[in-house]
Amino acid sequence: MHVYRSHTCAQLRLEDAGSTARLSGWVHRKRDHGGVLFIDLRDHYGLTQIVSNTGDSAFAVLDALRAESVITVTGDVVARGEGMVNPNLPTGAIEVRAVDVTVQSSATDLPLPVAGEQEYPEDIRLKYRFLDLRRERLHRNIMLRSNVIASLRRRMIDQGFTEFQTPILTASSPEGARDFLVPSRVHPGKFYALPQAPQMFKQLLMVAGFDRYFQIAPCFRDEDARADRSPGEFYQLDFEMSFVTQDDVFAAIEPVLAGVFDEFAGFATGEPWAVTKPPFPRIAYAESMLKYGNDKPDLRNPLVIQDVTEHFRDSGFGIFAKMIETGAVVRAIPAPGAGLRPRSFFDGMNDWARSEGWAGLGYTNFKGGEAGGPIAKNIGGERMAAIVAQLGLGPDDGVFFAADKPLKAAKLAGLARTKVGEDLGLIEQGAFKFCWIVDFPMFEYDEDAKKVDFSHNPFSMPQGELEALETKDPLDILAYQYDIVCNGIELSSGAIRNHRPEIMYKAFEIAGYSREDVDRDFAGMINAFKFGAPPHGGSAPGVDRIVMLLANEPNIREVVLFPMNQKAEDLMMNAPSAVTPKQLRELHIRTVEPVAKA
Amino acid sequence: MHVYRSHTCAQLRLEDAGSTARLSGWVHRKRDHGGVLFIDLRDHYGLTQIVSNTGDSAFAVLDALRAESVITVTGDVVARGEGMVNPNLPTGAIEVRAVDVTVQSSATDLPLPVAGEQEYPEDIRLKYRFLDLRRERLHRNIMLRSNVIASLRRRMIDQGFTEFQTPILTASSPEGARDFLVPSRVHPGKFYALPQAPQMFKQLLMVAGFDRYFQIAPCFRDEDARADRSPGEFYQLDFEMSFVTQDDVFAAIEPVLAGVFDEFAGFATGEPWAVTKPPFPRIAYAESMLKYGNDKPDLRNPLVIQDVTEHFRDSGFGIFAKMIETGAVVRAIPAPGAGLRPRSFFDGMNDWARSEGWAGLGYTNFKGGEAGGPIAKNIGGERMAAIVAQLGLGPDDGVFFAADKPLKAAKLAGLARTKVGEDLGLIEQGAFKFCWIVDFPMFEYDEDAKKVDFSHNPFSMPQGELEALETKDPLDILAYQYDIVCNGIELSSGAIRNHRPEIMYKAFEIAGYSREDVDRDFAGMINAFKFGAPPHGGSAPGVDRIVMLLANEPNIREVVLFPMNQKAEDLMMNAPSAVTPKQLRELHIRTVEPVAKA
Repeated sequence: MHVYRSHTCAQLRLEDAGSTARLSGWVHRKRDHGGVLFIDLRDHYGLTQIVSNTGDSAFAVLDALRAESVITVTGDVVARGEGMVNPNLPTGAIEVRAVDVTVQSSATDLPLPVAGEQEYPEDIRLKYRFLDLRRERLHRNIMLRSNVIASLRRRMIDQGFTEFQTPILTASSPEGARDFLVPSRVHPGKFYALPQAPQMFKQLLMVAGFDRYFQIAPCFRDEDARADRSPGEFYQLDFEMSFVTQDDVFAAIEPVLAGVFDEFAGFATGEPWAVTKPPFPRIAYAESMLKYGNDKPDLRNPLVIQDVTEHFRDSGFGIFAKMIETGAVVRAIPAPGAGLRPRSFFDGMNDWARSEGWAGLGYTNFKGGEAGGPIAKNIGGERMAAIVAQLGLGPDDGVFFAADKPLKAAKLAGLARTKVGEDLGLIEQGAFKFCWIVDFPMFEYDEDAKKVDFSHNPFSMPQGELEALETKDPLDILAYQYDIVCNGIELSSGAIRNHRPEIMYKAFEIAGYSREDVDRDFAGMINAFKFGAPPHGGSAPGVDRIVMLLANEPNIREVVLFPMNQKAEDLMMNAPSAVTPKQLRELHIRTVEPVAKA
Repeated sequence: MHVYRSHTCAQLRLEDAGSTARLSGWVHRKRDHGGVLFIDLRDHYGLTQIVSNTGDSAFAVLDALRAESVITVTGDVVARGEGMVNPNLPTGAIEVRAVDVTVQSSATDLPLPVAGEQEYPEDIRLKYRFLDLRRERLHRNIMLRSNVIASLRRRMIDQGFTEFQTPILTASSPEGARDFLVPSRVHPGKFYALPQAPQMFKQLLMVAGFDRYFQIAPCFRDEDARADRSPGEFYQLDFEMSFVTQDDVFAAIEPVLAGVFDEFAGFATGEPWAVTKPPFPRIAYAESMLKYGNDKPDLRNPLVIQDVTEHFRDSGFGIFAKMIETGAVVRAIPAPGAGLRPRSFFDGMNDWARSEGWAGLGYTNFKGGEAGGPIAKNIGGERMAAIVAQLGLGPDDGVFFAADKPLKAAKLAGLARTKVGEDLGLIEQGAFKFCWIVDFPMFEYDEDAKKVDFSHNPFSMPQGELEALETKDPLDILAYQYDIVCNGIELSSGAIRNHRPEIMYKAFEIAGYSREDVDRDFAGMINAFKFGAPPHGGSAPGVDRIVMLLANEPNIREVVLFPMNQKAEDLMMNAPSAVTPKQLRELHIRTVEPVAKA
């Protein structure tokens, strides 16, 4: 028999009764029932109940053990007595009567118990992460994460992608977030940087002639922590393809995401969840801003915003009419069935809007088809009937109105749509709803700088290419740029890249940059494109966010193995820490005391 | 038809003749045969020949293109004429007569041609890596690397391992090689370090109860470059298992390595190679030092060294006899069939040994069973007959003798074994021969410090555990430590770890370290082990070395996508580079001019 185990702690079944087994694991729970000792022995795979009677030779050893000690137990597999079967445990039909016990590692008192659901302060959990990881929820989350990543890899390979490792020690870039820097020992005064994303490398891979790249890529940004972003490092499913249109990119990645979500949806609740089937809906940016009030719509919410500005123009509802004269718009958010709610529901929404810093939220409530509230009173029956018709409102519905300059009205309407959907219980449960947001504007007018600038990524291909740049109003030009959104969470941005230097120079010229600016700031990419570059595009869905969605965890620390705390410290490894003067000398740097703020 | 391609450049066959196809790719080669233009169009997948005649509308466009421009060609697939078929090309039976051509990207003059086998200076190759990667050899090597890694992953998962990502921003450790440091913005004066290997994390994963960990792990050492080691980063197939013996570790990883080598062996030569079938031979360290003269034997070499000291003790060959009196040993390296070689072969070996700094290499050559050379003359027939019998020498063999203190004699004999094997053409070709080196000594006597110290890894479990440490001569204690070797290349060290604090304290005590030393220097690991640690062990075969072996490339830069040069510079990305004063201020560091050496 193997020195440590003949079976894992999840393997023994009723048909093993009568045999001898050897198990190894942690003492999960110990219960002393007056002369009979029950131990739940736990390993990575599961739990098995160990039994020992006072008279048994193993009793004294087992009795003396603290929880979380590691033991090897050899004993007889026996069927549990009537009424003692535990149907919630795969091994619940048997128990192992201990004959021989070896203590592999005896545990001292624990700072954090493993059995049970108790909450513990974050700092304790992170310092003793190796104990916290033994707890069921975290153990399950981390296994989910690993399985999701393995599934993503398998599915990408099945789609014809090849994984490549791009460098982690690379150059600092002037764009984007703050870099982590690494001083060079060999080159005094110079620094490597950790990549914020392998964007440039993956584009160079396309220029190098590799056709379909992907990588579960570690990315590094020296930014402060957020619930959905670790300080330090995070992972992306980074991918890029050559000779593709936007539709090809969608067709390649949709089965991967839908497949992974299908495979693991229901992890958190045990019930199967509905996942959007490819092709995912494509929603133009402008349409999304109108209908959902933002560019990451949660499609589990069935409510759709509409523009009702014309119904209020020159109407008897003077506040809105006057606002419209100075460029405001009015957006309507339907509230199905809300007409039967008390007045306080509607006033509460208005109060909420004011508390969030908005001027307020107008409303009309219907009871048996009769409109109530100040707006209905002032606007008149005809106009109200037109609004009802446009929105398709029922006799007992409500409707809210957000009036402001277009972007602000959209935003308030979007927030109201979410709140109304939630308050009325309209958000579909047990579903992952995907969509693409497409047709982002290439340029926008920067009110502060009083000039046209790039609205998102300057390196995306403008729709219509050079001709559009030369002939259209810049603010009318759209980009081949897209976001993938799931349940209102943006998983990733992506684009068909601009691979043609002449189009890049022109796009930058429109945004006010000279050819020399471009040659100086983006030399690496521009130069590479001059030696034959294929049309290419891709995206990079966030792995941590995908796992958070599937695990239904609101904080990224619950789905990362050894995370840092909010202050970017690893409390278990004690990082960052002071280093020796010799180390600093070798790196040609000196530390500087920060100047105390007055 | 798709805007870029209906087929890849490797797809079209004779049965496609008569159809219309669209291909996109790079202009690989262009040949003008007087009015007929032939273009080899290349993409990631292969080559297809494009043809255009002077009269065709596409001719002018194609004629004007420089090599490596990217084009999309639409045209008629036609069978090649008699005698024009290229049997070396999968698409060699057809060509595409260009009807329409779109230039996606026109290339300027190249610093490095893509077609052809020409050698180019390394700095040019690295600066324009995206061009070098288009060349067949590098493209194939990098695809091999990706496929090897994907296969390793698949095989590890099939063996029940789970991949986990351990942190890349972690703590600096006092042990091992030099760390790369990352200054902390949030904690002035403190630093993260990039991991030299995830050793501590993988052991903590075992303590956390995960059973079988692996990771294609990026590792970082700030050491100077070698042919088989990149400056900066490299990858290991890092793995660890709980509740296992040394044999379990071998049984888990042998099918993975044998499987991957079986799958890709012959990549370099196109012929199938022989790969050792599991179980791999296990050779004790002491036996390996004796038989092969080192602890990484190349088993493709059939020669086996033997100890022949006793035959020379008090013999007529005074030099050896006198050396033996003061502790030397004599090792014999057989040279099958060498007896028929001229005297200069044997003298040449002696000259080689002297030129390498050794005192020399004795020999005996046999012709028709008659021994020649000074040793045979002096030692006498009876002793020589005993040596012949012990080594099983044939009538026309030769034999070399290395006499020195045991370690030095072993080393010289090992070098001579390699040279004799190579010179006589005995090294088996087309084979990957694996073995394990086991039973490394736990301690060794440090001649300089005049004390017993750890001979390899202080964290390996001593064979016999606490009892051995308490009762045996430390120099007789072996460790559960092992190396895996392939064709004389060490792929990895590994060990069953010492997971018991009391055994660790005792082992360190023998090597002269107090309990307080251990608690101070290895607090993280020792403390974690006090909360219940399983017996565990693992290893970490080098991925880059595996790929180098399979690709038959002597330099690691030929199997890494974007490597740094010998001076740890990325010439393509211009890393390391100067950063802004603002960046340094935010990180609370200042650069220091190195003091010029007098």
